[in-house]
Amino acid sequence: MAETEEKVSLIPLGGLGEIGKNMMAVKYQNNILIIDCGLTFPEEEMLGVDIVIPDYTYVLENRQMVRGVIATHGHEDHIGALPYLLKDINVPVYGGRLTLALLQAKLKEQGINGAKLHQVKPRDVLKIGPFRVEFIHVNHSIADTMAVAIHTPVGTLVHASDFKIDHTPVDGEVFDFYKFAQLGEKGVLVLMSDSTNVERPGYTPSERVVGETLDKVFRQAKGRVIVASFATNVHRIQQIIATGLKYNRKIAIVGRSMLNVVNIAMELGYLDVPKDALVEPGMVASFPKERVLILATGSQGEPMSALTRMARSDHRQLEIQPGDTVVISALPIPGNEKLVAKTIDQLFKQGADVYHEAMEGVHVSGHASQEELKLMINLVKPKFFVPIHGEYRMLIKHARLAEELGIPAENIFVAENGQILEFTPEKGTITGRVTSGALLVDGLGVGDVGNIVLRDRKQLAQEGLLIVVVTLSKETGNIMAGPDIISRGFVYVRESEELLEEAKEKVNQVLDWCLERKITDWATIKGSIREVLSKFLYGKTRRRPMILPVIMEV
Amino acid sequence: MAETEEKVSLIPLGGLGEIGKNMMAVKYQNNILIIDCGLTFPEEEMLGVDIVIPDYTYVLENRQMVRGVIATHGHEDHIGALPYLLKDINVPVYGGRLTLALLQAKLKEQGINGAKLHQVKPRDVLKIGPFRVEFIHVNHSIADTMAVAIHTPVGTLVHASDFKIDHTPVDGEVFDFYKFAQLGEKGVLVLMSDSTNVERPGYTPSERVVGETLDKVFRQAKGRVIVASFATNVHRIQQIIATGLKYNRKIAIVGRSMLNVVNIAMELGYLDVPKDALVEPGMVASFPKERVLILATGSQGEPMSALTRMARSDHRQLEIQPGDTVVISALPIPGNEKLVAKTIDQLFKQGADVYHEAMEGVHVSGHASQEELKLMINLVKPKFFVPIHGEYRMLIKHARLAEELGIPAENIFVAENGQILEFTPEKGTITGRVTSGALLVDGLGVGDVGNIVLRDRKQLAQEGLLIVVVTLSKETGNIMAGPDIISRGFVYVRESEELLEEAKEKVNQVLDWCLERKITDWATIKGSIREVLSKFLYGKTRRRPMILPVIMEV
Repeated sequence: MAETEEKVSLIPLGGLGEIGKNMMAVKYQNNILIIDCGLTFPEEEMLGVDIVIPDYTYVLENRQMVRGVIATHGHEDHIGALPYLLKDINVPVYGGRLTLALLQAKLKEQGINGAKLHQVKPRDVLKIGPFRVEFIHVNHSIADTMAVAIHTPVGTLVHASDFKIDHTPVDGEVFDFYKFAQLGEKGVLVLMSDSTNVERPGYTPSERVVGETLDKVFRQAKGRVIVASFATNVHRIQQIIATGLKYNRKIAIVGRSMLNVVNIAMELGYLDVPKDALVEPGMVASFPKERVLILATGSQGEPMSALTRMARSDHRQLEIQPGDTVVISALPIPGNEKLVAKTIDQLFKQGADVYHEAMEGVHVSGHASQEELKLMINLVKPKFFVPIHGEYRMLIKHARLAEELGIPAENIFVAENGQILEFTPEKGTITGRVTSGALLVDGLGVGDVGNIVLRDRKQLAQEGLLIVVVTLSKETGNIMAGPDIISRGFVYVRESEELLEEAKEKVNQVLDWCLERKITDWATIKGSIREVLSKFLYGKTRRRPMILPVIMEV
Repeated sequence: MAETEEKVSLIPLGGLGEIGKNMMAVKYQNNILIIDCGLTFPEEEMLGVDIVIPDYTYVLENRQMVRGVIATHGHEDHIGALPYLLKDINVPVYGGRLTLALLQAKLKEQGINGAKLHQVKPRDVLKIGPFRVEFIHVNHSIADTMAVAIHTPVGTLVHASDFKIDHTPVDGEVFDFYKFAQLGEKGVLVLMSDSTNVERPGYTPSERVVGETLDKVFRQAKGRVIVASFATNVHRIQQIIATGLKYNRKIAIVGRSMLNVVNIAMELGYLDVPKDALVEPGMVASFPKERVLILATGSQGEPMSALTRMARSDHRQLEIQPGDTVVISALPIPGNEKLVAKTIDQLFKQGADVYHEAMEGVHVSGHASQEELKLMINLVKPKFFVPIHGEYRMLIKHARLAEELGIPAENIFVAENGQILEFTPEKGTITGRVTSGALLVDGLGVGDVGNIVLRDRKQLAQEGLLIVVVTLSKETGNIMAGPDIISRGFVYVRESEELLEEAKEKVNQVLDWCLERKITDWATIKGSIREVLSKFLYGKTRRRPMILPVIMEV
């Protein structure tokens, strides 16, 4: 009887109902294994916030149960929050060589020493607490991405990580069909699979397609070639560099993250670049234009990135020249469309020819399309299916896809972050909920910017600010100094002197009125000032600045 | 000799190098004719700005020359700034019936009376000053769109407005091929043509395609159907309503702009809706679900629109029910992608089935694709070509398209807003530049929110604010009250009392230091406070709030 009561739980802490900050907890008895701990970028309304990480209160509350973290690959949305978690609990981290190297660079940047990093490779099998964990090679837009099979006494769970199926990968390492098929044959209890591209029919093209496109572009380019891409996509970077070498171009690398990642990848042997092929950005001018390849950050139009600076003639060392060919080998991440479009416009204005998303083959996705997702499900043949990594509509569509393949609807769970999904060998149930959500990181502060601060920032951003300062006599309540009015972000002061004078007059009237009525309660005085001014200013401008009355007493 | 010196000028004041706020001035001798006067929506960094209109200083400076404005169609980016212009100069406006009705509604809203609106229809020919203006029917995503041919003594200019070529339009009114061909045969000096969709190969599908898709969706829908679309796309609205009627559904209209436009369009006969087909939104519950069609605003995920409110259960009268079918019959305008995705997610969570951009045929564009653009050029056979309505890269690509069709490169002008393009029968030249740009509208203020205000808003939005107030003795310079510290949007005050206490201590130190050195100059004292606090706070938080020291004297 006890045997059938046994259960294993999944507690998604991020990545469900959203793109980013992926984090999944697997719990068996008093043991928790965490898969990934990523960050995401702030929504537009999260003013001033730098990054967003999962609220991992649940993990901290159960810290004695945590056996380790598996980092499936080195993208920010899978390892970006790990430095924060490791600051709080120093648990072992398991990941591939490149993954750990990228993580280590982050830890160093944040001054975190003594992390317990354990390097693993595909087909490794580890015992972590009661879990037997198998690492499985998949294709993705970063090298060293691994899915995991977690064998528990209740059954086997497969977490597919982010993946695509590439039949002609740049490094020759095809997706490990055998491993998934073998697991499926033996029996898998739960499959968690990547929903990012579930809306795309067909197959995602091979990374090699980009190489072919690059070859065409380089062959036709008369001047310099500048390529912007994600630094972590080392296969892409390898193809760009190889094409540059083929066409006899020297390679200059610009942008901090590109330099960092290329250096790490070269050291580890993920990138093969002859030393004499590289030149300093400052030396580019001494080579003929048709002998130059510049590899740059800025594929997302980030304002401070190398390509964006070059596009607006604001880069320290390099500028765009008429006749340059620029390739943006990436798709804009949702929300970045306008930034990227602006950069492209500026590049055209500087006289460059630009290849971007509108041209087929300049970029391919790292995520599986519908036919690959079907293949994953049919290889693994899980009893239960949990779509992960996607906005809610994507999870729903992934669930429907699984249903079409014959998985019964009651065995498919479209879950939310924080829900507890319990599985016995026979049955899956959503049994409850743990604390979950988003922690906002602003500068050194983690979680100290909350709704009140954001609400204030929003009002300040939209309408600006008006400060009213007055010094009153402690004895008589008479005005000793002021009222002074200071505004910021409200109106252009020089052109609005009259308006601000009238506002001051309004404040004087309120103070007189209060004095006459012997009102000395500051809250009442401040409230009256706020009310009268707000009405006055709205009538004159249709704007509602934040009004801050300050009273001093002498 | 004098004859050959004659010239006609184009002065684009908006819509070049951008999508939106289209405005073109045509000048011949002392006569200016304006084509369109539209608005655009603020960029992300234009915090708190409501809308953006063209800087039409040039028009005001030459007001005595202005003979009139042609409104080619009723979209915001073509007529949205007209109320502002007409407030400044009451010149005659020429446009189609629907165009003028939509404009009139705007004028009424802004309390503008006495506008001189002149209704025209396709093939009308008007004499406006020295210009002979012909109106030509084109297809677009709003009824009553007209291109114009402007005959001047120097030659004929064709302004194509926004257009597509629809061989099976909903109202049966096909694009006026003959008129364009006739103009081309007689000889056209300059063609200005719409670049919006120049990156799309092939042809834009007919509006009728959407009708076929809607039919499929309605046929399969078991519960209520809710369709969101642009209110001004009356052909789209007509198809939605017709499909609803075909499937025996009563129609409820929600959202202010949808109600307004549908009422105007019904009154003018652009929409054919049997009176008894409409029901009040409040009555929807009394009909069986499969008998209900709800036509709503919100296709762009606008936070206050009907669909968005329904999606987040915040609508006064209606809510989403499991089994509802929602169709978003529009594409997200660049910048709105995330808002739309959020709405879709919420709809799925409420149990609705959602058809959106991922599904083919749920929306078609109102702008010509490459093959249609080629057709326009080859019908009109202009001597000079000026691509309009598009970001810079689109203008460049449109220019290349024209070159491929045999127009010599030196006869193609990729221009910028504000440039003066002069044409004689033989030659085109960019001869100079007039004032142009963007006027930001915030509440009642037009142009009073400028760079300084926006810079302040940005700092306040990103980092928040810290106010330091202190009252000093006029005689001794001693502190009489304070220093008090008030912060907004910086840190959550309750959790940061210690930090703010330390900050106060820092201010006290600065003041003591100044007093000891007999520094009484306020600017110096304020500067020191700012410097010391800024350094202190950055060290503690890595944030740089705006610091506002206020000194009062008694």
